[in-house]
Amino acid sequence: MKVLECIPNISEGRDKGKIEEILASLKDFPSVKCLNVSSDEDHNRSVITLLGPADAVPKAMLALALAAIDRIDMRRHQGSHPRIGAVDVVPFVPIRGMEMAEAVEIARGFGRELGDNAGIPIYFYEAAALREERRNLADVRRGQYEGLQEKLKRPEGQPDAGVAAFNPKAGATIVGARPPLIAFNVNLRTTDKSIADVIARAVRHKTGGYKAVKAMGVALKDKGMVQVSMNLVNFNETPIHRVVETIRFEASRYGVSIAECELIGLTPMAALEEVVRFYLQIPEFSLDQVIETHLLS
Amino acid sequence: MKVLECIPNISEGRDKGKIEEILASLKDFPSVKCLNVSSDEDHNRSVITLLGPADAVPKAMLALALAAIDRIDMRRHQGSHPRIGAVDVVPFVPIRGMEMAEAVEIARGFGRELGDNAGIPIYFYEAAALREERRNLADVRRGQYEGLQEKLKRPEGQPDAGVAAFNPKAGATIVGARPPLIAFNVNLRTTDKSIADVIARAVRHKTGGYKAVKAMGVALKDKGMVQVSMNLVNFNETPIHRVVETIRFEASRYGVSIAECELIGLTPMAALEEVVRFYLQIPEFSLDQVIETHLLS
Repeated sequence: MKVLECIPNISEGRDKGKIEEILASLKDFPSVKCLNVSSDEDHNRSVITLLGPADAVPKAMLALALAAIDRIDMRRHQGSHPRIGAVDVVPFVPIRGMEMAEAVEIARGFGRELGDNAGIPIYFYEAAALREERRNLADVRRGQYEGLQEKLKRPEGQPDAGVAAFNPKAGATIVGARPPLIAFNVNLRTTDKSIADVIARAVRHKTGGYKAVKAMGVALKDKGMVQVSMNLVNFNETPIHRVVETIRFEASRYGVSIAECELIGLTPMAALEEVVRFYLQIPEFSLDQVIETHLLS
Repeated sequence: MKVLECIPNISEGRDKGKIEEILASLKDFPSVKCLNVSSDEDHNRSVITLLGPADAVPKAMLALALAAIDRIDMRRHQGSHPRIGAVDVVPFVPIRGMEMAEAVEIARGFGRELGDNAGIPIYFYEAAALREERRNLADVRRGQYEGLQEKLKRPEGQPDAGVAAFNPKAGATIVGARPPLIAFNVNLRTTDKSIADVIARAVRHKTGGYKAVKAMGVALKDKGMVQVSMNLVNFNETPIHRVVETIRFEASRYGVSIAECELIGLTPMAALEEVVRFYLQIPEFSLDQVIETHLLS
């Protein structure tokens, strides 16, 4: 079975009743599981994790998106997280039995359908981007909802699908396909945040580190520790163990050790294959050796 | 879904046609997967790995056992591995959604049915044992097929199910329930087999080591290495990483390091949970954080 994940970010994180109504749109798609709903009041934003068969997930996502667009009015939206529309970002992630190219096709098909149905501009990003300058989400979202009307007047702001007219209630939606993202934190046994900062700079791509690592230093006041907080955006290119062991030796120059690590949310089993190979020194280890793999059809 | 594994050991490892005929008995049970068939000519024995729903596996296993008993004649069987019958050992292993107690009930039910249908003595071992002295497989099998007729005349040799009479063609079958067994080898960068021997003695239960470890030293002539060859018989009690790290520090006293490890056959995903927790220092890691877990109903 081809399995697809979809993690829509919608611009409502405060009104629980409204969020419930939006999620109720999933009831017609029993094969699609809602694994997690994470609502943030400051951000006024909810991150929803959907998982299911590749043919059902885009249909469920369309129902969810239309329900959200029905109930969210961007003219009244305020929140600390950048956003461009009621359904802000919709990334599709290939999990099983499919390649990225197929997720890209699904993302673009979904984007065209949502754009036409909801009458909103659609921009494609990451692997689904049609223009190189739209690969990066932050670049596509620059100017946010408040700048969208002006953006749509400029040639470089024309959408990739849907309608080119400004929809004041719904804004726009950014749709894409990307590899699974792993949110991984390394907590260091020190209260000196500058150590977490300098290590974050050492491992992250932007400042010379590993290609698929985004990182920043964070103070954990309650724990009396500091944290290298990371997104590992492609575990095939930059595997988890390499980042952890690099942080370990970089911290050791300050006499600091790793107190503990945190895996936030979900990881694909494939990211653990290389962890087992490295730490247990089993060069030939394969997920086919995991019994449960044979229960997944 | 309740998922059960069953790993019958049958006394035919040479006649491929006969093995194929025996395996053909599984065709009426499409929900039961045959993950592996490992036939050994010296042993004249095949180890078959079945996986499927807990209600289907014993039925498939009964069909397989009757087909094997039909085609194997113990009066003509020779092989280097100890055996007591045509269908020598049938362990049931709970994999998912069930406890050991349930696997024990299934094993005993299967044993009674096989014993009555095939007219053979059945002995229950490990978690399914009805007598403490029958927990250990080697103890139950002592005397082998050749000693079975005499054994059945003695009070302490009476079977736990089936018929007490000697069946010269089929012998007896030993049926049990046990936790998953992990076959795990650690290869050391030395040609001195005595180092593998002494480390095997250090980690194995019999000589003072970890409770759930069976181990022996082996020379790997082709590789120019030696091996600590192990069965980890309960990864909850004695986790993989603890054995590997113990072998690492014991080897280091001889200036020897671990060249590589080997996982033979299959492991349940649960055995890797503690590996990830230990090496990545994620105390809270849970298999619920693995996306594929949510695809297993």
